[in-house]
Amino acid sequence: MKAEIVSVGTELLLGEVSDTNAGYLASQLVLLGTEVHFITAVDDSMDRLGEVLGRAWARSDLVLVTGGLGPTQDDLTREAVACLLGEEMQVSPPLLQNLRDMFAAIGRTMSDSNIKQATLIPSAQSIPNPRGTAPGWWVERNGRLLITLPGPPQEMQRMWQVEVLPRLQALSQGQALVLRTLKCSGLTEAEAGEMAGGAGDWSNPSLGIYARADGIHLRMIARAASQDEAASMIAAAEARIRAALAGHIWGSDEDSPEAAVGRLLTERGLTLATMESCTGGLLGSLITDVPGSSAYYRGGLVAYSSEVKVAFGVEPRLIEQHGAVSREAAEAMAEAARRRLGADVGLSTTGVAGPEGAEGKAPGLAFIAVSDALGCEAVEGRYPPLRFDMKRRVAIQALFLLRRRLLAR
Amino acid sequence: MKAEIVSVGTELLLGEVSDTNAGYLASQLVLLGTEVHFITAVDDSMDRLGEVLGRAWARSDLVLVTGGLGPTQDDLTREAVACLLGEEMQVSPPLLQNLRDMFAAIGRTMSDSNIKQATLIPSAQSIPNPRGTAPGWWVERNGRLLITLPGPPQEMQRMWQVEVLPRLQALSQGQALVLRTLKCSGLTEAEAGEMAGGAGDWSNPSLGIYARADGIHLRMIARAASQDEAASMIAAAEARIRAALAGHIWGSDEDSPEAAVGRLLTERGLTLATMESCTGGLLGSLITDVPGSSAYYRGGLVAYSSEVKVAFGVEPRLIEQHGAVSREAAEAMAEAARRRLGADVGLSTTGVAGPEGAEGKAPGLAFIAVSDALGCEAVEGRYPPLRFDMKRRVAIQALFLLRRRLLAR
Repeated sequence: MKAEIVSVGTELLLGEVSDTNAGYLASQLVLLGTEVHFITAVDDSMDRLGEVLGRAWARSDLVLVTGGLGPTQDDLTREAVACLLGEEMQVSPPLLQNLRDMFAAIGRTMSDSNIKQATLIPSAQSIPNPRGTAPGWWVERNGRLLITLPGPPQEMQRMWQVEVLPRLQALSQGQALVLRTLKCSGLTEAEAGEMAGGAGDWSNPSLGIYARADGIHLRMIARAASQDEAASMIAAAEARIRAALAGHIWGSDEDSPEAAVGRLLTERGLTLATMESCTGGLLGSLITDVPGSSAYYRGGLVAYSSEVKVAFGVEPRLIEQHGAVSREAAEAMAEAARRRLGADVGLSTTGVAGPEGAEGKAPGLAFIAVSDALGCEAVEGRYPPLRFDMKRRVAIQALFLLRRRLLAR
Repeated sequence: MKAEIVSVGTELLLGEVSDTNAGYLASQLVLLGTEVHFITAVDDSMDRLGEVLGRAWARSDLVLVTGGLGPTQDDLTREAVACLLGEEMQVSPPLLQNLRDMFAAIGRTMSDSNIKQATLIPSAQSIPNPRGTAPGWWVERNGRLLITLPGPPQEMQRMWQVEVLPRLQALSQGQALVLRTLKCSGLTEAEAGEMAGGAGDWSNPSLGIYARADGIHLRMIARAASQDEAASMIAAAEARIRAALAGHIWGSDEDSPEAAVGRLLTERGLTLATMESCTGGLLGSLITDVPGSSAYYRGGLVAYSSEVKVAFGVEPRLIEQHGAVSREAAEAMAEAARRRLGADVGLSTTGVAGPEGAEGKAPGLAFIAVSDALGCEAVEGRYPPLRFDMKRRVAIQALFLLRRRLLAR
C-alpha cells in the first residue's frame, strides 16, 4: 500500500509552527507496513490545496490529511476534498447536534461558523473527535482511502490511535511488521555500526543506526507474513545485537535514561538525591518526568553559587583549593546531597555552562559524580559549550554514570 | 518571488527524524519577503526525487533542497539536479583538494565514496561548508534559482546564514519586510484577538495570533519598499497593540519568560531562590537556561517528598493540616526557599502531577507562591493532568507570578 501525508496550514509555510503531525503519522504508517513516499505541506489556498490533494489521490492508495478542519474561512480541507471528488457537502443533523451539545457542556453558544464542522459528503463517514470541535472524514472510493484529521496534535493523535489505526490494521492483514530499537551509550555511531553490522546480514530485519542525545539507537525492522514470524525474526536479531554490543545497551524502544535508572533504583530499593550546579535543575526535572519517581527520588539541591554549595555541606576549603568546577567538588556535592537528603545514593553535576569561562576553565568542561555507601566516583567530560545543549548532555551522562554504578553494586 | 522547499531523506518518510530544516528555512524566507507555498519531503528514490524537483523547478522561482548530499549511494540530490537540468557532474579539482585537506586535518584518509561530494555541474557554483564534507550548490538558470544545502541542521543553518542569505538579500532589493512578535499572558487567544483586532486595520502590517506554552503571541508583518518604512509601520502598529493590551504584554520576539524575569531581577538588584515539588527541577532549569543567571539565581531545592519539604524548613503541622498540595504549603515553601538560601525572593511550586491523585486531590491541581520582604502571595491553578505538559505550564505560570510581583514592587 502506498501512502502519503498532506499537512495543511499557512502557519507551517511561514515556519511559525513546526509540523510534528507528519513525522508522527509517518512513524505510525511504518508499523502498518505502509510505505510513505511523499509528505507535502501546503498553505490555506484552495488552488494549491486542490492541486496537492489531486496528485496525492491519483498516485497513492491512502492519503492522510491533517489540518484545515477548523471553523473559519481559512479552513478549506473539507471544501477541497468535496471539490476533488465532485461531491457536495451537506450538514449532518446528528453531527450538528453533537457539536451544539459540546458547546452547551462548556456553557457557550455555538457560532454559525462552526456549522461547517458538522458537514459530510456522500463518500465520507465521520470520525469522532471528543477532544475538539472538528470530526475527521473517512473517505473511501474506488478502493482508495482519504482520511482527514484535525491539526492540533492531541486531537489528531487520539483520533489516529483510537479511531483510524484499528480500522487500517484490519485492512492490512497478510503483512506484518515488527520494529525494535535498542539504545546504547559509550560508543560512537561508527563503532556501534561496525559492531552491529558485523553481527549478521541486515536485509530482513533491516538495521538503521542513528545518533541521538541519549546515545546511539539501533533500529531493526522485520517484515513477514505474520506478526509471530516477524516477532521471532526480531527476537533472533536482538540477541545477535545484544551479544555484539554487550554492556553498552541500556534500553529499548520508548525507554529513556531516566526511566532505566528509575527501574534499577526500584529493583534495588534505593533512594536518590541530587545536587546540581551546571544543569541547574534539569537533572531533577528529567528524573521527575518518570511517573512514580516520588517513590525513590527524595529531592535535590540546585547549588548555583559557591555559597549555596557550602551552605548545603560542601567544605569551603575544598572549593578554594580545587575550584567549584572540579572532580573534588563534584564528589563532595554528591556526598553532601546523599547525607543532607537522607538518600542511599547522591548524584551531582558541576561545570562551566558558558558563554563565559569561570575559574580559568573554558566553557564545556563538566564533572559528574555519584556517591553511595561504598564511596564516590567522578567523571570528567568536555561538552559542546552551548548552554542548552550542554545542560542536557551533562544531565544524561550523569544518569548513565548512576546506571553503571547501580549495575556494579 | 515564489519559493519552495524540498527535504530529501528516507529517514524523514519513516518518521525517524523530524524535519526541522523546512520550518527553519520557511521562517527565514518570510524575512526575505518570499512566499513559500509548498514544502515537500521525499525519500531517497531517484524517480520520486526527480519528480518532486521537476515540479518545483517548473513552478517556483527559488527551490531550496536540503539533504541527500552525503557520500553514500543513497545520497542522490546532486544526481537528481544534474538529471533535471540535463547537465553532467564533473569532479572539481579545488573542491577535491579541499576535501582531502579536511580529512587530513582530522588524521583520516578520504574514502573514494567522498569524491562525489567534490563534483559540480556547469550551472552550479559551490557553496562552502566548513562544518562538514558536503558543499552546497548554487544553481542559476533562466532567472531561476535552485540551492542545495546539507541535511544536518548545524551545517545547513551555518551555510544558510553565512553563505546563502546574504546573496538572496542582495537579490531581493526593493522589497523589505519587518516582523515583530509581542507575547502576552493572562488572556485567552480569543480575548487577545478581539483586543488586538479592535486596535486598527491589519492588512499591512498583517497580524497573526497564536496560542503557545508561554501565552498568546501576536505576530505583525509589515511590507514596504524600504527597511526604514517597514520598521516605522511596525513601530506604529506595536504602539497600538501595546495600548490595547496594556499590562498583558511581557515580552517580544525571542524573549522567554525566564529571560524577562532575569532582566527584572537584575534591574532591581534582587536575588532569587526556588523550592519545587511538582515541577521537580524544571523551574530551576528554565531559570538557568538564561546566560548570566548565576548573578541573581542563588539556587533551589527540589522537595519531592514531604520529609524533604520539612527538612528544608516547612512546618510539619502545616502539611498535616492542609496537605503538601495547598496554598499554605506553597507559601511556606517560597518563604523557606528565601530564608534557607538567603535570597531576596522565594518562588515555589506544589501540585499533583499524576497519573495518580494524591491527598484526595485530582491530578492537575497546583499551587505556586512567591515570597519577598513584603509578604507572600499564592495562586491556585488547574492544568492538563499530563505530567510533562503540566510541569512546563506550572513552571511558566510561576515565572509569570514572579514577574507580576516584581513589577508591583
